[in-house]
Amino acid sequence: MDLAFAFDLAGTFVFALSGAILAVRHRFDVIGIAVLAVSAGLGGGMIRDVLLGELPPNALEDEAYLLTALAAGLIGFSFHTTIERLSASFRVLDAAGLGFFAVTGTARSLDADLSIVAAILLGVVSGAGGGVVRDLLAREVPLVLQREVYALAALLGGAVFVAAERGGLAHATAATLGVGATFGLRVLAIRYGWQAPRPR
Amino acid sequence: MDLAFAFDLAGTFVFALSGAILAVRHRFDVIGIAVLAVSAGLGGGMIRDVLLGELPPNALEDEAYLLTALAAGLIGFSFHTTIERLSASFRVLDAAGLGFFAVTGTARSLDADLSIVAAILLGVVSGAGGGVVRDLLAREVPLVLQREVYALAALLGGAVFVAAERGGLAHATAATLGVGATFGLRVLAIRYGWQAPRPR
Amino acid sequence: MDLAFAFDLAGTFVFALSGAILAVRHRFDVIGIAVLAVSAGLGGGMIRDVLLGELPPNALEDEAYLLTALAAGLIGFSFHTTIERLSASFRVLDAAGLGFFAVTGTARSLDADLSIVAAILLGVVSGAGGGVVRDLLAREVPLVLQREVYALAALLGGAVFVAAERGGLAHATAATLGVGATFGLRVLAIRYGWQAPRPR
Repeated sequence: MDLAFAFDLAGTFVFALSGAILAVRHRFDVIGIAVLAVSAGLGGGMIRDVLLGELPPNALEDEAYLLTALAAGLIGFSFHTTIERLSASFRVLDAAGLGFFAVTGTARSLDADLSIVAAILLGVVSGAGGGVVRDLLAREVPLVLQREVYALAALLGGAVFVAAERGGLAHATAATLGVGATFGLRVLAIRYGWQAPRPR
Repeated sequence: MDLAFAFDLAGTFVFALSGAILAVRHRFDVIGIAVLAVSAGLGGGMIRDVLLGELPPNALEDEAYLLTALAAGLIGFSFHTTIERLSASFRVLDAAGLGFFAVTGTARSLDADLSIVAAILLGVVSGAGGGVVRDLLAREVPLVLQREVYALAALLGGAVFVAAERGGLAHATAATLGVGATFGLRVLAIRYGWQAPRPR
Repeated sequence: MDLAFAFDLAGTFVFALSGAILAVRHRFDVIGIAVLAVSAGLGGGMIRDVLLGELPPNALEDEAYLLTALAAGLIGFSFHTTIERLSASFRVLDAAGLGFFAVTGTARSLDADLSIVAAILLGVVSGAGGGVVRDLLAREVPLVLQREVYALAALLGGAVFVAAERGGLAHATAATLGVGATFGLRVLAIRYGWQAPRPR
């Protein structure tokens, strides 16, 4: 199992769990929970593969993605009380998914010969994509438009990954640093209320 | 005219009519009605063709789709009072569209060599897709997230179609059974208020 | 620099500026402004390229698009007070973007051998697409569903372009007439409150 695949599945799992928790909060039934888990878990990667022209998308070619998202949905349905007790769990799960998909989105875009700038942009799109699909379906303000440096964190993760790999680090090390950068910035921003400037 | 094409047009028509009725309820003008009819009628099939990589999508290659959706929009504009008098007509039309697209989505995905699981998933996506586009544009809670076993009905239709065809029934019979299964389950769920379990 | 590219960039700029102004109105921070500017500026063209199967989309192949959208976002962030003082600026910018993308969407679809009807439809989709993405993310009623003949103006621009070019006018003249037709109809409709008929 190569690393991009493992990171994709990890991102799918945590995004799907965030979708399940949001669905529970909205008091959707078990089918609605599965729908929102699968949409959040598979949405970002599907948007990435569509834009790269790699069709059908990975998430349809390999059933591991769907099973991972459904498992996360089931876990969310069964253990939501426990998960919710860990405060801010929804946004922390989302932050992890953002990191995984920002890095794998950037890596797969570079493999497809996009420029570095376009690859990092597509990393942001695939990182934010699953969450946007989730939030639109549930009619929430998309996290990516709220404060707390969401898109910047995704951009940072992609940039750290590219810089580390071009700087000679092993692929796995660079990817892990990238995920950590996105996740770390998001969690710190949530914890300390960091915000980007607003217009006067 | 092959069967998948006929079912596609039937699904386009009923989804477009559901879009037109929703647009009338929102008091959109005739152009908004046409936009919502076309979006609902063509959306699910376009999403399916994009994910299968069959581009440009059928709905752009063959003008029958657009004309069907516009005809449905015009009928919705002209006869909405009569249509609305048939109670629950909006959700019944939507249920028929869900059945047609769930089955043709599954069938076309199998033709494109997707696995059975992926084909049924894409059937659900193409069945639900047009309705999601319609509901998001009109800022309604997507039907697929409301109760009444929406996604399950689409899944059932795809599964019944695959089982019936693999079991040796003729393509047309299997497809009709699949559409009937989705439509029947949805209409019964609406009629009797069937709901999936909710988390405690 | 060919004309379609120039018109694409012009459309990207004005749509991105409309996104930035909407983001300022919603009191998003500078990152949210950049996200909404880029989504509005690149969304319509990406949807067009996805449906044409021209992947990765232009907006990822050529960094001029991203830089143009980010520049518009920065201008929106810095000068929103001045821009807002020009009344109705948001919808006027949107009208210009609609015209540019309706015409380039139609032109690129004809290049891809779509029929005239499908090409004009895809012109409407790519013209309206960026605005729909923008409005959905900001949770506004999409302009395309509001009154004031929005979709009709996009359709008119595509049709005028096709008629003028088939009638023997130079490509640049035909394209400019098409953009002018869309923009003119929209601005007149906004100014004089023109509306399409509504159902009784």
